[in-house]
Amino acid sequence: MKSLLEAIRPTTILEPAKLRDSLGLDLVVVSETFQHTGSFKFRAAYNVVLNRPEDEFIGVSSGNFGQALALACRMLGRKCTIVMPHNSAKVKVDAVLAYGAEADLINVNEVSRVERLEQLGQQRSDAYMASAFDDRLVIEGNSTLGDELLDLGLDAIIVPIGGGGLISGTVESFERAGKDIDIIGAEPLIANDAARSLKAGKIIPNEREPQTIADGTRTLSVGDQTFPVMQRGVKDVIEVTEENIATGLRMYFSLANLKCEPTGALSLGAVLQEPERFRGKRVAIVVSGGNVDADVYARLLSTH
Amino acid sequence: MKSLLEAIRPTTILEPAKLRDSLGLDLVVVSETFQHTGSFKFRAAYNVVLNRPEDEFIGVSSGNFGQALALACRMLGRKCTIVMPHNSAKVKVDAVLAYGAEADLINVNEVSRVERLEQLGQQRSDAYMASAFDDRLVIEGNSTLGDELLDLGLDAIIVPIGGGGLISGTVESFERAGKDIDIIGAEPLIANDAARSLKAGKIIPNEREPQTIADGTRTLSVGDQTFPVMQRGVKDVIEVTEENIATGLRMYFSLANLKCEPTGALSLGAVLQEPERFRGKRVAIVVSGGNVDADVYARLLSTH
Repeated sequence: MKSLLEAIRPTTILEPAKLRDSLGLDLVVVSETFQHTGSFKFRAAYNVVLNRPEDEFIGVSSGNFGQALALACRMLGRKCTIVMPHNSAKVKVDAVLAYGAEADLINVNEVSRVERLEQLGQQRSDAYMASAFDDRLVIEGNSTLGDELLDLGLDAIIVPIGGGGLISGTVESFERAGKDIDIIGAEPLIANDAARSLKAGKIIPNEREPQTIADGTRTLSVGDQTFPVMQRGVKDVIEVTEENIATGLRMYFSLANLKCEPTGALSLGAVLQEPERFRGKRVAIVVSGGNVDADVYARLLSTH
Repeated sequence: MKSLLEAIRPTTILEPAKLRDSLGLDLVVVSETFQHTGSFKFRAAYNVVLNRPEDEFIGVSSGNFGQALALACRMLGRKCTIVMPHNSAKVKVDAVLAYGAEADLINVNEVSRVERLEQLGQQRSDAYMASAFDDRLVIEGNSTLGDELLDLGLDAIIVPIGGGGLISGTVESFERAGKDIDIIGAEPLIANDAARSLKAGKIIPNEREPQTIADGTRTLSVGDQTFPVMQRGVKDVIEVTEENIATGLRMYFSLANLKCEPTGALSLGAVLQEPERFRGKRVAIVVSGGNVDADVYARLLSTH
């Protein structure tokens, strides 16, 4: 049974000259696109399954967390069920099945994800209900990414925010190391619940699932576990337009040979939103994942 | 002044689970897409400029070698001119200019590349005419990639062939280390001069520049320096259909989160061409570079 640090793939650190020259900024790209299952979520999922005694895990996800939980369960010999909307992209359902998990497809017009989770929880009371972000073990697993960045001499690090799991892990990693750098969130402008929540000093959810192209951030709100960590350690959240997310994705393609998903381009989008703020500083931009359908990607490449 | 090993970026070694599982093969992806200037060519170009006394370098390239030579010259304080067809993609001309080189744009209907090189050679007799592949310093520079692969426990390695510079370097690296593995070339079926030459025991050029989508292999023939090395150490050349090149590129996108150029997908295309041959073996597939225009890439992603 591999420890967390043995199981994860170290992150990929790039300093692409064309991207840096074109913006005139000292950018360090931290890419989790080559992590197991193609996103940082594996760090969290593996840590959850490793440290929980249950034989079965149930998660809700049509995206990266589902694949990550499925693989972690397979590696650690546990049973796994992923609740997914019945109209999820076939490639995403297939990926979950390929990792040996069960896909529980629901019609979200008839039953909400929360209701279905409650049903399953009653039917399978011994299973662990795994949250994609609102769990101490998730934050702890994600903090391993920050640990890999401690010695890069950074002034700032920009991290995408969905439920806040990755940025909370980043905050805790730098806190543990006693290193004080600016930890900045990147959130879609049309899904800016974290920015609004931090300003208000309390969690303010989105009224409905925001339809941003950064589909990894279509969460209703940050979590009870992540919000206090963010209040403590997140300096600021930059709210990124859909256009800058797409431009970031295209710049990674053209100037860094990096394929990423729209959510992964959020941190570069944040730089495009406020470039002057980062002039003369050494700034890491975290690419959270790379999983995106070919047709979506081709369309984003073509529109400019 | 950095040594060659200080100047290059170590290659990126990936073992993508989805790709391996989908083919049922023990594949190791060796990607030079994140090398400086986005292809392995930088290894060669830097070694040439480092070891030649001339103050000026002239190369012919509308692609990766031009960018690599331009950056190597900038890093080592030399003057650089890249001869390019006047209808080269604007991004490629811009890349050469961005690295501080001069772009010498020629109308190939009026003057051939060879003629223009001769003209320039007479005008600037002190300059070094740098070949993209037919040069001992090129082969030696490329051999540093093989050196990074010696301890991966490989049974075979598949390398794209254009002029034969990369595969010759690979042969010499494994020869130096006294390691005997199968070194296999991957060449487009419609640009199969290396395969024909090795069978015939002498260099047989293509009659004209072959219009394969793997544009890095549109060379007329292998070189006088590379051919004997290939005769000595290349076990076989797999001739890859255009369709398998494109499928390889799409599989890297979908199953490995890797953006590559068509030429870079040749080695995976060779695996798709003859998968049974590699069953039960540990096989490295070299992705030679990642530079491809967004519209070409989007079109390749969409056609399937």
